[in-house]
Amino acid sequence: MASKNYKLIISYDGTRYFGWEHQPGRETVQGKLESVISRLAGEDIEVLGAGRTDAGVHALGMCAHFALDTELSPEEIRDYFNRYLPDDIAVLKLTEASPRFHSRYNATGKTYRYTIYNGKTKPVFDRKYVWTIEEELSLERMQTAAAFLQGKHDFAAFCKAAGKNKSTVRNVDRIDIRRKGEYLILTFHGDGFLRNMVRILTGTLVSVGKGEIEPEMVKHYLAEGDRKAVPATAPAQGLCLVEVDYD
Amino acid sequence: MASKNYKLIISYDGTRYFGWEHQPGRETVQGKLESVISRLAGEDIEVLGAGRTDAGVHALGMCAHFALDTELSPEEIRDYFNRYLPDDIAVLKLTEASPRFHSRYNATGKTYRYTIYNGKTKPVFDRKYVWTIEEELSLERMQTAAAFLQGKHDFAAFCKAAGKNKSTVRNVDRIDIRRKGEYLILTFHGDGFLRNMVRILTGTLVSVGKGEIEPEMVKHYLAEGDRKAVPATAPAQGLCLVEVDYD
Repeated sequence: MASKNYKLIISYDGTRYFGWEHQPGRETVQGKLESVISRLAGEDIEVLGAGRTDAGVHALGMCAHFALDTELSPEEIRDYFNRYLPDDIAVLKLTEASPRFHSRYNATGKTYRYTIYNGKTKPVFDRKYVWTIEEELSLERMQTAAAFLQGKHDFAAFCKAAGKNKSTVRNVDRIDIRRKGEYLILTFHGDGFLRNMVRILTGTLVSVGKGEIEPEMVKHYLAEGDRKAVPATAPAQGLCLVEVDYD
Repeated sequence: MASKNYKLIISYDGTRYFGWEHQPGRETVQGKLESVISRLAGEDIEVLGAGRTDAGVHALGMCAHFALDTELSPEEIRDYFNRYLPDDIAVLKLTEASPRFHSRYNATGKTYRYTIYNGKTKPVFDRKYVWTIEEELSLERMQTAAAFLQGKHDFAAFCKAAGKNKSTVRNVDRIDIRRKGEYLILTFHGDGFLRNMVRILTGTLVSVGKGEIEPEMVKHYLAEGDRKAVPATAPAQGLCLVEVDYD
């Protein structure tokens, strides 16, 4: 019998997961999805994602795909997922895709959002989805630095374990930072991101916002490519994968 | 030495609390606030709230007051609270009030919001702050019933343990229901609310929205005053005390 190829859009609260990718003996998002769909299929089904998210990182619109031979409609499969998945993972959309669709190889871009709470009190209801910074951040300084980082660069300095990559050049065509009440919302769009890259970029922009380093320093980091020179990685919990693009 | 009277605006995620009011051996919001301010004062300080919220109910803007003899500024007291309170309770505002200010006796109105998720999937990020209802609800039917409930009525049928009240007449001058994406937001404003009243009103409106009862039935419930005739109480987790009014 012929399997069909399905495309999934998934939302998850990453708080209690060791990231997307499965690891033996650990709770992961991929592991949860695979266990539900394998139960439906009566055999092991692999669910492949557009990328990996780190432990504690959230997603509004992760994309994944899997092959399954079934008579069920896409809505029925989606509802099955949502009935058996824990309440911190939801399948937002499930559609049949072309047989050659691959969530990772066909991805042409990704949008990430990093949320900082920069107010005077405490963010009670979204405390698990933000990085709380008490010291006032300068939006203008951060925007200046973001403009230097935007574009096609070698991001070796903004990457964990850069040596594992064939290339550390990426095109980040948009880094947008805006204040929304007591929050700072950083939106990154690019053709791809290296390991920890959004969190290292955010950590650097926060150092600029605090006045610890000058906005121009980021040009130096890009040119030098030295991870150790760059400020600390922002915590995972403020990061969310918003969307994956396909042509 | 003369004590000053302080007014607090407090936000909390009620998920893990047995409501506002302290109870021996249980975690309550009032208990948490009192333990922090008593530690600052070096003696027992009572923090009185504008009302009680049930176990599991949230607040964006609960109001409370307490008396304290201190040299600290209101900002310093607020920051002390926020440093020592758990991360699911925040003091948003703390100001010196007139010596006669009483958060409960001086309250002239309250706004509550009830949030229902009525979409096709699952609300991952606010799953602890909504009531999820899969069956499609008719906004129009609910609005028709809400119009009958709005106004000054004897709400004995919409109250737990009505016998404990001197009067069960309340003026609910606004019940607004609107759809926002996959959510239904119910906003209630009135001069006061009886025990479980907003949750019983919401449970009733949901029964109307599902088509289990006709909108006109609520007129009958009001006239009869019989709690047992009225549909079930909505779960606590969808309810939030938004604001308390003072003249």
